[in-house]
Amino acid sequence: MSRKPIAIIAGVGPGTGAAIARKFAAAYPVALLSRNPDTYTPIVDAINQSGGKAIGISTDVSDSKSVKAMVEKVKQEYGNDVKVAAAIFNASGAFVRKPFLDLTEEVLDASYAGSVKGSFLFSQATLPLLLFSTPTSEHPPSLIFTGATASVKGSALFAAFATMKFALRAQAQSLAREFGPKGVHVAHAVIDGVIDIPKTQAWGLAKEAMIDPNAIADAYWHLHTQPKTSFTWEIDIRPAGEKW
Amino acid sequence: MSRKPIAIIAGVGPGTGAAIARKFAAAYPVALLSRNPDTYTPIVDAINQSGGKAIGISTDVSDSKSVKAMVEKVKQEYGNDVKVAAAIFNASGAFVRKPFLDLTEEVLDASYAGSVKGSFLFSQATLPLLLFSTPTSEHPPSLIFTGATASVKGSALFAAFATMKFALRAQAQSLAREFGPKGVHVAHAVIDGVIDIPKTQAWGLAKEAMIDPNAIADAYWHLHTQPKTSFTWEIDIRPAGEKW
Amino acid sequence: MSRKPIAIIAGVGPGTGAAIARKFAAAYPVALLSRNPDTYTPIVDAINQSGGKAIGISTDVSDSKSVKAMVEKVKQEYGNDVKVAAAIFNASGAFVRKPFLDLTEEVLDASYAGSVKGSFLFSQATLPLLLFSTPTSEHPPSLIFTGATASVKGSALFAAFATMKFALRAQAQSLAREFGPKGVHVAHAVIDGVIDIPKTQAWGLAKEAMIDPNAIADAYWHLHTQPKTSFTWEIDIRPAGEKW
Amino acid sequence: MSRKPIAIIAGVGPGTGAAIARKFAAAYPVALLSRNPDTYTPIVDAINQSGGKAIGISTDVSDSKSVKAMVEKVKQEYGNDVKVAAAIFNASGAFVRKPFLDLTEEVLDASYAGSVKGSFLFSQATLPLLLFSTPTSEHPPSLIFTGATASVKGSALFAAFATMKFALRAQAQSLAREFGPKGVHVAHAVIDGVIDIPKTQAWGLAKEAMIDPNAIADAYWHLHTQPKTSFTWEIDIRPAGEKW
Repeated sequence: MSRKPIAIIAGVGPGTGAAIARKFAAAYPVALLSRNPDTYTPIVDAINQSGGKAIGISTDVSDSKSVKAMVEKVKQEYGNDVKVAAAIFNASGAFVRKPFLDLTEEVLDASYAGSVKGSFLFSQATLPLLLFSTPTSEHPPSLIFTGATASVKGSALFAAFATMKFALRAQAQSLAREFGPKGVHVAHAVIDGVIDIPKTQAWGLAKEAMIDPNAIADAYWHLHTQPKTSFTWEIDIRPAGEKW
Repeated sequence: MSRKPIAIIAGVGPGTGAAIARKFAAAYPVALLSRNPDTYTPIVDAINQSGGKAIGISTDVSDSKSVKAMVEKVKQEYGNDVKVAAAIFNASGAFVRKPFLDLTEEVLDASYAGSVKGSFLFSQATLPLLLFSTPTSEHPPSLIFTGATASVKGSALFAAFATMKFALRAQAQSLAREFGPKGVHVAHAVIDGVIDIPKTQAWGLAKEAMIDPNAIADAYWHLHTQPKTSFTWEIDIRPAGEKW
Repeated sequence: MSRKPIAIIAGVGPGTGAAIARKFAAAYPVALLSRNPDTYTPIVDAINQSGGKAIGISTDVSDSKSVKAMVEKVKQEYGNDVKVAAAIFNASGAFVRKPFLDLTEEVLDASYAGSVKGSFLFSQATLPLLLFSTPTSEHPPSLIFTGATASVKGSALFAAFATMKFALRAQAQSLAREFGPKGVHVAHAVIDGVIDIPKTQAWGLAKEAMIDPNAIADAYWHLHTQPKTSFTWEIDIRPAGEKW
Repeated sequence: MSRKPIAIIAGVGPGTGAAIARKFAAAYPVALLSRNPDTYTPIVDAINQSGGKAIGISTDVSDSKSVKAMVEKVKQEYGNDVKVAAAIFNASGAFVRKPFLDLTEEVLDASYAGSVKGSFLFSQATLPLLLFSTPTSEHPPSLIFTGATASVKGSALFAAFATMKFALRAQAQSLAREFGPKGVHVAHAVIDGVIDIPKTQAWGLAKEAMIDPNAIADAYWHLHTQPKTSFTWEIDIRPAGEKW
């Protein structure tokens, strides 16, 4: 029996991750990853209550043991021969905006761990499950990375953050070139603006000046539905009024 | 009475233009532009026969009189107060691949007329109708431009073609920054590969190595549906196996 | 007898063009082009008086006849077998900053003529003389184009200007890829800021906030001296305090 | 007494580093860094014998203690109030070209340490000495980073290498924006091709197809001489015949 492929989403908090989780859960069983169960539990519950299927797995994507344990849990839940239709890396190291000479080695290391090593380990864990998914999924298997303005612009005071966002983008681009010909759709999204999530809603911006997480989820879903003949590698998303 | 807004598509031939026309005709009455009625007539007929509403208008987008006459015909057909939900510039000057010293001034001028002046006149004609469309359309009014590999890479032997594709991209980018804050979604698509159309099907490429025009149309439709908080300015589209 | 190769500089006014002219006149006889003799005459005189060799030629680079006549004058002065060590395109269409819907077709055409057709005709006229210059010049023959911020960024209100600057950059890039392997060094400079020339000195900016034309000339000279193993295609130049 | 400022060059081996060291040693006393004394000793000796002044310091740029010890040695040799006219980061993690699923976490960590943390620690150590150098140096103090093709293109099989080169470039760009206004010239060079050094000479490429390290040194010197009004942030360098 060929089971339904699943979607794995890393970095599921109350904003973009949740919106992506809900979107993909409408089509696939999902595994939602976050370090802290508090962040994914409400979303897992909501999906399961509304007829979808979700599990949450506490995962530190920068720790290879934790990532391996995550894969084991996915297999326990969804079968040893589980296929992945979509793997989405929405995690990130902490946002850092600081004069360069005030940055510490620890901040750089943490930024590396969260953004670069995290995406590396997540990709190494999911690509083997993505590579053989085509026959069981309507759409080509997809590996999508969430980037930021700092993925393409190294602004002053962003030496740590932009460094790791550029790095993540390079990794995604290299994977797109290596795994596209093998049928995996690797894409990168430059989210250029403030996302409308609980934390940022306190900043006092106009609703219209913030990116709707559901629109990000819709864009990721559109990317996922693109056929093998027509892959998009990169999209940017920003509010209509954003200066860029 | 508030009438339905329409879509205007320039450069409607048997490939991408036709696919875009069919896609947008599912939601809007359409006006399809091409220099030669032979290219748009079958598409206009097919749309009208399948319950949609389409008119074809013979237009030389590089000629301001012809573009003005086009707008008049659109107004005759769809009303003087017609609103445009989507204007899509899919026209292009001829593809030219030639040693630089073999290019003539005439070739450069023709390339300018078809790609740059064409998009300029088309944008000037449609933007006033796009600017006031928001209230009557579910989605923000959209102005979308079709680009190519040569929009971002000036390869050897492409001095004329890449020159005008870079130019078109600059125009689109400038319009995105000027009209985004006014609510018009301006986007540019880098179509990076051979499109699967009648002409190219004779080239002997594998089906999978050519971009599906319907996937381009789907991507344009997705762009059109993005809310004002979440505009994409640029996407690239290429076959999974394309070298880039 | 093998005569000294010359340098041809288009767009010689009192600022950047003059600085480039003086710099290259220290090594080569020069031909200085401008539409109006008033702009090049003082520079021609100064070079000739200080022991260099310069001629001025009234040229409209956007007019093929004028460009042909220029080549004839160059040959009359410097010999039918004249070789060109460096050709520098520093001309430009007028700077235009205007709401898109206020632009006229004439403005776009003039911008095309000055920037794109001008560089096209200049390149077609000089490349044949550059191609065979290596043996007579110490440095590889060079074709250098002056760009601007708008060469890489299509800002709001710059639809005409950026369009043509992007186009110029594409042309330069295509030429670099076509003629590099033939030994001609084609380069493009993104001049990102206000240049310190008589006209802009009235704007009231701090001296330090404006680009020194002599520094541009030094950079072009450095580009010219790069050996065939080590060509730079693009440099950017901006004041230390410029926001970018 | 105001002593002459010095230049510090990290990553001094027999190729590019040596050429840069010789070039800057013609103007400044130099400190040459490499992990292994064997790589810098011949260059230190040659500079000292030809009338220059050089010291070599065994340094692991990815180790903060080692970098601190390096600064101490520099101060012992050149004075506690030493100023730095130019700091050049030419070190790199190992070149890695491998299928993504064959990469190990250790390879990624090593690549991070060598390229990203190394440049971070080097910049943090040298910037304070660069910031106050202007009055004692003829040219603005400069911090220059050596990049590669992989700094701007994430090719297949380059997930580890390109990731860290993109990261290095982001760091350099952020520093340029933060420290340019403070008078430090931060620049990044995209070395796009094989450099003509002992190791690569065995590869059998034509001499002309390899980048001359002395030309890289000349370019870095030119960057260093740019005045505060006219900083270049990025140059690319490649052989005339290189495909790009």
